[in-house]
Amino acid sequence: MISTKCLACKDATGAMIEHTISRRAVGASDVHIKISYSGICHSDIHTGLGEWGEKSYPLCVGHEILGKVVAVGAKVTQFKVGDTAGVGCMVDSCRTCPECQDGDEQFCTGPGGFVGTYGTTQPEDKVPGGVTMGGYSSDIVVDEAFVIRVPEKMNVAAATPLLCAGITCYSPFKNHGIKAGDHLGIVGLGGLGHMAVKIGAAMGCVVTVITRDPAKSDMAKAMGAANVIISTDEAAMKAAAKSLNYIYNSIAFDHDVQMYLNLLKNKGTMILVGGVPKGAMPQGSFALIGRGLTLAGSLIGGIQQTQEMIDFCAEHDIVCDIELIPAKPEAVDTAWKRTIASDVKFRFVIDTEATL
Amino acid sequence: MISTKCLACKDATGAMIEHTISRRAVGASDVHIKISYSGICHSDIHTGLGEWGEKSYPLCVGHEILGKVVAVGAKVTQFKVGDTAGVGCMVDSCRTCPECQDGDEQFCTGPGGFVGTYGTTQPEDKVPGGVTMGGYSSDIVVDEAFVIRVPEKMNVAAATPLLCAGITCYSPFKNHGIKAGDHLGIVGLGGLGHMAVKIGAAMGCVVTVITRDPAKSDMAKAMGAANVIISTDEAAMKAAAKSLNYIYNSIAFDHDVQMYLNLLKNKGTMILVGGVPKGAMPQGSFALIGRGLTLAGSLIGGIQQTQEMIDFCAEHDIVCDIELIPAKPEAVDTAWKRTIASDVKFRFVIDTEATL
Repeated sequence: MISTKCLACKDATGAMIEHTISRRAVGASDVHIKISYSGICHSDIHTGLGEWGEKSYPLCVGHEILGKVVAVGAKVTQFKVGDTAGVGCMVDSCRTCPECQDGDEQFCTGPGGFVGTYGTTQPEDKVPGGVTMGGYSSDIVVDEAFVIRVPEKMNVAAATPLLCAGITCYSPFKNHGIKAGDHLGIVGLGGLGHMAVKIGAAMGCVVTVITRDPAKSDMAKAMGAANVIISTDEAAMKAAAKSLNYIYNSIAFDHDVQMYLNLLKNKGTMILVGGVPKGAMPQGSFALIGRGLTLAGSLIGGIQQTQEMIDFCAEHDIVCDIELIPAKPEAVDTAWKRTIASDVKFRFVIDTEATL
Repeated sequence: MISTKCLACKDATGAMIEHTISRRAVGASDVHIKISYSGICHSDIHTGLGEWGEKSYPLCVGHEILGKVVAVGAKVTQFKVGDTAGVGCMVDSCRTCPECQDGDEQFCTGPGGFVGTYGTTQPEDKVPGGVTMGGYSSDIVVDEAFVIRVPEKMNVAAATPLLCAGITCYSPFKNHGIKAGDHLGIVGLGGLGHMAVKIGAAMGCVVTVITRDPAKSDMAKAMGAANVIISTDEAAMKAAAKSLNYIYNSIAFDHDVQMYLNLLKNKGTMILVGGVPKGAMPQGSFALIGRGLTLAGSLIGGIQQTQEMIDFCAEHDIVCDIELIPAKPEAVDTAWKRTIASDVKFRFVIDTEATL
C-alpha cells in the first residue's frame, strides 16, 4: 500500500482538510503515477457538496490528473518509469459489455457501471478504504487500460484539464461528424466552452461564441472564434438566426434554450453537456419538429477517444487557459467559491507536486 | 381554369360543405390529376379548426392525394396521360435555397418557405382564389417537380396515406441511418405509428410496439412487430429498459417521455414527429447527457425522398390499413370526430372519384 497525502472534503460543506489515504500496491497491470497537477472541475464541487448524491467523508476529489510514472506492474506494456501520464474521469469499467467493447466505457452497462475516479464504492482489495479517491493527492495507482499516454511537451499544468474538459468537447464533435467548414456555435464560455472554441477552431470550424459577457469577446477571438454574439443583443441574435450547423451548449443551469435553437440552421444539432436537473429544454416538440432539429446529450468520452483527443491537442498545441494554485486547503476553498461564482478564466489547476 | 368540386370547411368549426373551386389552367410544366382518393391526416383537422393559425374559409384541405393524370403541359417529361400520380404535403418551394437544393423542400428557406398543399397564400395567377386548396376535391394541378410517380399496382385507396404518413416515417429512418438488425421501438400506434411498424419491419429492424391498448397487440404483430409492450405494465417496461437503438415517437399530445427514454440503449435516439406545443420533453438535460441520448425532430420529407419511399413501399407491398368513406360532408365530419377520438384503424381515406 502506498501512503498518499491529499486534500479532502471534510464533510458536505466541501471545506478542504489535509488528509492521508492509501493507494493499493502496484499490481501486474497497474501504473503508479506521482501526480504533478490536478484540475478543478465543477463536478468535483457538485460531488463534494453532496449535490449528486450522499457521499462518505473525508472525500478526495479531482478527475483531471497529470503526472509522472514512478512504477509499473510486470504486465504493463504501454508505460515505463519516467513517462508522462494522465488520468481522467474513470479508473475502471467492466470491459466486457457492448459499450465497453465499443470504447464507450462512460456508458458501461456492467454491474455498477464505470468506476469513477473518485467517490465510487469498490472492494477493499482494489481500493483501500472502499471508495475511490481522486487527484487532489500526491499519488494514484490505476490499471494501464485507464491511463492516457501524454506527450512530454504536454507535461504542463495547462494541459491537465484536457482530461475532462477537453474530451467533453472532442467526443461529441467526433461522434456527430463535425468537420472543417461547419459553422459551430459555442454557448457558455467557461471551462468547457473555451476548450470547445479551441478544439472546434483546430478542426477547421467557423466558430461563433454566444456569451452574455461583452468582456469575453476579445478572449474568445484570441482562442480562435471567428465571431462573437452578445446574447442580450436582440438585433445581433436575430441577424444570426439559422446560421449554425451545430451548437455546443455548456450552460449548466436552467436557461431559455429556444433563443439558441433559433440560431441553428434547419436540420442543425445542439449538443448538450451542461447537467441541468430541471429546465433548459424546449417547451414542446414543435421546437424540434418544425425545423428538423436535434438535441444530443453527451457525457465525457471513452478511453480510446481520450487518447485521440490528447494526441490531437498535442498536434495543434491546444492547452487550457488556467490559474495555477497551491495545494493548500484555503487556496482550494477559494478556488471552489470562485468557480461557483463563474469567476475563473477558465480553469483552476492545483500545483499538486510542488505544494502537497 | 378548371372548375373543381370539393368538400371544404365552412368555417373554423371544421364542418364540411360541398363547394366549387378553380384550379389554374395547365401550364407548361404542370400535371392535371383527376383525384381518385384523398387521405384524412390529423393535420387537416388542426388546420381546418384554426388550431395552427387563422385561416380563410371555405377551405379545402387534404394532402394525401392519389389519382390519374388527365393532362400534362408541353414541357412535362416525367408524366403522361393515364399515369398514376401522387401529391403530398407540398406543391411548390423556392427550389433555389440550400435546403431545396439538398432535397429538403420541407425546410425551404426561400421567401415564405414551402407552399403547402392547402392553406398557403399564393399569387392569383398561380392559385385562383389566392390560397392553395387540398385533396378533398375532384381535380388538382401541380408542377411536375412536386408530383410523385406511383406504380400502377399502388393505384389503390390504401396507398394514399403513404404520401404523408409514409414519408413521415421513412425520411427520419433513412436520415438517421436505421438499418436491418436495429432494435426499433414505435410509440403511438396510430396513422403514423402503424406505417412506422410496416416500414421499419421491411427495413429489417426488430420492431417493438409500445402501446397502452392491449387490443392493438395482435394488430401490431400482424403488421410486422416482433414484440409488443403494454406501457402500463411496469414490469414489462422495466424488463425492456435499455433495449432499443431507436424509438419513433408519434404521440401528438403531452406525455411522460422519460418512461420511453428509459427503453433506449445508451447513445440511442428518439425521433419525434408528434407536434406538441408544450410538454412531451424530458425534465432537464441530465435525461439526455447521462446516457448520451439524442432527441431528433423530423418533419415529413423532401420530394425525392417521397419518391424513394413510394418505390420502397411498392417493392415491399406496403400500404396502410384504412377505412374508405364516401366524399360526403356528413361522412367526413364523422371521420374527423373519430380521428380526434383516436377511433380509427388506422387512417380514413375519402373515395373522391367515386363519390364527389
